[in-house]
Amino acid sequence: LTDKLPDLQAGTDHRGIDIDKVGVTNVRYPLQIPLKDGENFYTVANLSMTVRVRHVEIGTHMSRFMQCLNSTAWKFTPYSVHQVLSDLRERLKSSYAHIKMEFPIFLDRIAPVSGEIGIMDYDCYYEEEQCTDDDQTLSLRVTGVKVNVTTLCPCSKHISDRGAHNQRSEILIRVWPIGDEIVWFEDLIEIAEAAASCPLYPVLKRTDEKYVTEKAYDNPRFVEDVVRELALNIEERLQGQIVMYFVSSTNRESIHNHDAYAEICRLVEYKGS
Amino acid sequence: LTDKLPDLQAGTDHRGIDIDKVGVTNVRYPLQIPLKDGENFYTVANLSMTVRVRHVEIGTHMSRFMQCLNSTAWKFTPYSVHQVLSDLRERLKSSYAHIKMEFPIFLDRIAPVSGEIGIMDYDCYYEEEQCTDDDQTLSLRVTGVKVNVTTLCPCSKHISDRGAHNQRSEILIRVWPIGDEIVWFEDLIEIAEAAASCPLYPVLKRTDEKYVTEKAYDNPRFVEDVVRELALNIEERLQGQIVMYFVSSTNRESIHNHDAYAEICRLVEYKGS
Amino acid sequence: LTDKLPDLQAGTDHRGIDIDKVGVTNVRYPLQIPLKDGENFYTVANLSMTVRVRHVEIGTHMSRFMQCLNSTAWKFTPYSVHQVLSDLRERLKSSYAHIKMEFPIFLDRIAPVSGEIGIMDYDCYYEEEQCTDDDQTLSLRVTGVKVNVTTLCPCSKHISDRGAHNQRSEILIRVWPIGDEIVWFEDLIEIAEAAASCPLYPVLKRTDEKYVTEKAYDNPRFVEDVVRELALNIEERLQGQIVMYFVSSTNRESIHNHDAYAEICRLVEYKGS
Amino acid sequence: LTDKLPDLQAGTDHRGIDIDKVGVTNVRYPLQIPLKDGENFYTVANLSMTVRVRHVEIGTHMSRFMQCLNSTAWKFTPYSVHQVLSDLRERLKSSYAHIKMEFPIFLDRIAPVSGEIGIMDYDCYYEEEQCTDDDQTLSLRVTGVKVNVTTLCPCSKHISDRGAHNQRSEILIRVWPIGDEIVWFEDLIEIAEAAASCPLYPVLKRTDEKYVTEKAYDNPRFVEDVVRELALNIEERLQGQIVMYFVSSTNRESIHNHDAYAEICRLVEYKGS
Repeated sequence: LTDKLPDLQAGTDHRGIDIDKVGVTNVRYPLQIPLKDGENFYTVANLSMTVRVRHVEIGTHMSRFMQCLNSTAWKFTPYSVHQVLSDLRERLKSSYAHIKMEFPIFLDRIAPVSGEIGIMDYDCYYEEEQCTDDDQTLSLRVTGVKVNVTTLCPCSKHISDRGAHNQRSEILIRVWPIGDEIVWFEDLIEIAEAAASCPLYPVLKRTDEKYVTEKAYDNPRFVEDVVRELALNIEERLQGQIVMYFVSSTNRESIHNHDAYAEICRLVEYKGS
Repeated sequence: LTDKLPDLQAGTDHRGIDIDKVGVTNVRYPLQIPLKDGENFYTVANLSMTVRVRHVEIGTHMSRFMQCLNSTAWKFTPYSVHQVLSDLRERLKSSYAHIKMEFPIFLDRIAPVSGEIGIMDYDCYYEEEQCTDDDQTLSLRVTGVKVNVTTLCPCSKHISDRGAHNQRSEILIRVWPIGDEIVWFEDLIEIAEAAASCPLYPVLKRTDEKYVTEKAYDNPRFVEDVVRELALNIEERLQGQIVMYFVSSTNRESIHNHDAYAEICRLVEYKGS
Repeated sequence: LTDKLPDLQAGTDHRGIDIDKVGVTNVRYPLQIPLKDGENFYTVANLSMTVRVRHVEIGTHMSRFMQCLNSTAWKFTPYSVHQVLSDLRERLKSSYAHIKMEFPIFLDRIAPVSGEIGIMDYDCYYEEEQCTDDDQTLSLRVTGVKVNVTTLCPCSKHISDRGAHNQRSEILIRVWPIGDEIVWFEDLIEIAEAAASCPLYPVLKRTDEKYVTEKAYDNPRFVEDVVRELALNIEERLQGQIVMYFVSSTNRESIHNHDAYAEICRLVEYKGS
Repeated sequence: LTDKLPDLQAGTDHRGIDIDKVGVTNVRYPLQIPLKDGENFYTVANLSMTVRVRHVEIGTHMSRFMQCLNSTAWKFTPYSVHQVLSDLRERLKSSYAHIKMEFPIFLDRIAPVSGEIGIMDYDCYYEEEQCTDDDQTLSLRVTGVKVNVTTLCPCSKHISDRGAHNQRSEILIRVWPIGDEIVWFEDLIEIAEAAASCPLYPVLKRTDEKYVTEKAYDNPRFVEDVVRELALNIEERLQGQIVMYFVSSTNRESIHNHDAYAEICRLVEYKGS
C-alpha cells in the first residue's frame, strides 16, 4: 500500500541548498551500557539522529531513522551506534550520518571511613559521526561524562579565620578517541573526581562526613585549578588514545546566585615512538 | 567510631515547631518496573523520601534515608516502597513517611496499518505515604502517568474550509487506589490514549501517517473534551478500585505560543452492591 | 464576521461533568512590579489563567482570556489581577476564576564590608482566585518568594577539625494574606535571608568574602533549622496579616548529589485583642 | 582593607596550561532593548562573561566581572556589551573577553482578520567577543532569535483525504554581522515567520482561527523546507550585512513523541560591486 501512496520526499528540490543535518531529535530510548567490570547497566537515553541531505533532494525519510534504531531494540548499546550509522547512510543514501546521546549510569560508591555502600548517578555522553568521501569512510567519536563534585575555595580558606565556602560543582569532560580506542566512562569519572576538592557520595555516616569535610578543606580548588588538573590528568592518562578533549568546571557558588566557570579545549599532541 | 562523634540531631529542640516533611529530594535511583505482561523493565527514577519530625527533635538522620533505600539496591520496585516506608518510620522513629517518584517506561507500539513495531516512552508516577496513629497504620498511594497524544481542534475543523489545527498534547492522570488495589500503568496509558484525537506512535510509514491524520480529523477534541472523556473512562473502568482521581490535559497549541489547559479532580462515589 | 461563524463552545454538553479549571497556561507577559521604595520594576511573568466550566457548557472561550489580559497591556501589575479576574468571571460567565504567575525581580545589594553595590535577582510568586456564591464574592490570594541563600551544616562543623560543608540553598515562602493586606516581596526576602547561615551577594570583594565565610561558619543551620526560623519569623512579623503559610528549604548539598529538604505548612492562629 | 588581605589569584601558576574561558555564568540581569520603532523594552537576561587566562596566571578576579557589569546598572543594553568587554580586558589584563546572553522581548501582534491586538513573546540572543593581538582588536558578534511558528506537513496533506497534521515548531536563527552592521531582532523574527506555514498569534477570534488554519493548510512545510526558506531569505535580505548564519527548525511533531529537526550553517559569499 505504501508504494501506491505518492512519496513527496522522493522528488527533486530546485532551491540548490544542501542541508547539513536532518533527522529526529529528543528521542528517548532504552539503552544497555557495558561496564568496565563486565556487567551491563540498563538505562534510558535521550538521543538525536541526523543525516546530510543534498541540494537536489526534497528531504529525508523520517520513519527510516526510527526503523534503523528499532533494529537494535532492547539490545541497543553505544557499540551499536556504528552499525546504525552505516544503516542510516545506506537506507537514506546519505554521505554523512550522526548520532549523539546522553544517559545516566549508576556505580557503587563506598563511604571512605564507614565503608557504607551506596549507588551514585553519573551522566554520560556518546556521539559518533560517519562521513563517506569517494570510497573512504571517516568516523569520529566523542565520549563524555558530567560529574558532580565538591570544590572548596582556596581564597576563602586563605583569608578567613574559620571555615571556607564550598559547593556542589559540575565537571564536564568530552574526549575524541583515536580510531577504535575505547575510553571507559568509569575512567573519565575517576579523572573528574580526582580533580576536585572531594568526590560526592550517596551515603555518608558521621565519620565519613568528618572525613570529606576535612579532605575538601585540605584540597582547596578554584575552577581554574579544576580544569588544569583535568587537562593534566587527561593528557597523561589518555596519551595516545585521544586526539582532542574539552573540559569545563561550573561552581554553583555557595556565596553567589551565579556560577563560576572555566573551560579548556585542546588538541592532544601525538608523542609517538 | 560513629558512636564516639557527637550526634547533634539526637538533641532536643526548644522552638516548639513540628516539621511536616524532612528528608532527601532529587535522588536518582535505578528502578525495576514489573509490567502487566510479566516482563520487568529497568529504568531510572527521580525520587524524594521524607518523614515527619516532632517539635522536640532537632532533626532527622539524612544518611538513614539512603541506607533504607540501598537495602533494596538493584532490585528496587514500586512494590518495595511499602517496606522502605516501614523501615524509615522505624529507623527514624517517625509517625509518618512519604516517598514519591517519577520514571519513564517503554512499551512496544505497532503502527496501525503497516504493522511496523516501535518502542514508545511514557512517564510514570508512584507515591505512597504511611501514617501511624495509636496502633493503626494508614497507607495512601497514588499511581499516575503522563502521556503525550494528538488533539485536533473541533472549532478549527468546523469553521475552516480545509484542514484543522492539531498538536502534541500532554495528558496527566493520577489515581488514588483503594487498599491494596493494583492499577497498572499500562491501563492508565490506554485510558489516556483513548481520550485523545489519536495516540502518538514511534514509527509511522506513509500508510500509517494517512491513517492517523484522518483519525485525528475524525475525532476532534477540545481540552475540555479530553478531561471529560478521561473522567468518564476512569469512573467506569476503575470503579471500585480508586477513591479519587486527578486528570489534566495541556495542548501545546500549534496556533499560539501558550498552552490550553483543563483539569478535573474528583472523589469517586462508591456504588457498592 | 465572527458572529456568522458557528460557535461550538456555545452549545450544551450532555456528559454531566463540571470542569474545575479551564484556560491558558505557560503565557509569558510583561509585568510591572511596584516596589516598597516607590519605584517600579519592569519584568517578565510566566502565568496561567483559568475558570470553572459548568457541566452543561461545552467549554470556555480561550481568546477572551488573552483579551482580558491585554486590556492591561504594558501596565499589568499584581494589583491588576483582581480586576482581570472580575472581567474573566463576567465575560466567561463563570463563578470561579484563578490567576497565578512567577517572575524575577532585582534589588540593590550592598556588600557587607566593602560597600560595593550590585544587583541581585529573586523569584517572586503571586496568585489570586475569586469565587462567587449567591451574591458573595470570596477572594483568596497567595504571595511568595524563592530566595537562594548559603547554609552551613552544624553537624559537619561540630565533628570536623577544620572547615564545614556549606552550599547554595533554595528557600521557598508562600503566605496567604488576610483580606486586602499587602505583604511585600521585599519583606519575605528579608525573612528568608535572616533564616539562613548567610545571604548571597552579587559582588563580594576579598574583605566581604572573609566576612561571609566567617558569618556562615558562625551561623550553622540544618534545613530543619531554616524552616523553623522561617516559621517563627513569619508568625511574629506577619501576625494579623496572614491566615496560612508554607515554607521549604532545599540544600543543594555540597557533599551529595541529592538535596536535603524540609517543609512546614501551617494555619496561623488569630491572636486578636 | 582588601589590599592587606593576601591575593591568591595574583600569584604565578606553574602547570603551564592556558585556560580558554574563565568567568561567571548563569547571571540574571535587567536589560533594556532598543526596538526598531524607537521604543525601549525592559527585560531580564541570562548571561555569561568570560576571559582568557594565560598559563602563568593562577586565575582571574571573579568580582571584577560583576563590577564591570554593574557599571552599566539599570541601563545595560546590547550596545553596552562592547564597552563592558573592553573594561573586562583592561581590568583583568586579558587578551580575550566574551559575553553571551539570552532574553525575551515582546512585540504587538495584530490578529489577521479581526485586527485584535495582543502581545507576543520572542526569545533573543546576543553574543560578542573581543580578541587583542599586537595592537589590533578583533570583534565578533552574533545576533539571534528563537521563534515559535506553525508548520503543516506536506506529506500528510498530500496523502490524506482530509486534514493534515501540524504543530508548534521552533525556529532558531543566528547571524554573524559584518563590522558594525546592526541586524534587528525584529527583522530576524520576520524572516523566521515568513519561512513557516503560518506565524503564531497571542489572540485569535474565530474568523482569525479560520484564516490561520487555512493559511497553514495552503502553505505546507517540511523542516527541510523551513531551513531552506530561512537560508534563501537571509542570503537575500541580509546580503552584505553578515558573514555567516546558522538556522534550525524543530517540529514538536503532533504524531510522534520525538521531534523532527533540520539545520544549515553557512558562510555567506561576498558579492561585492
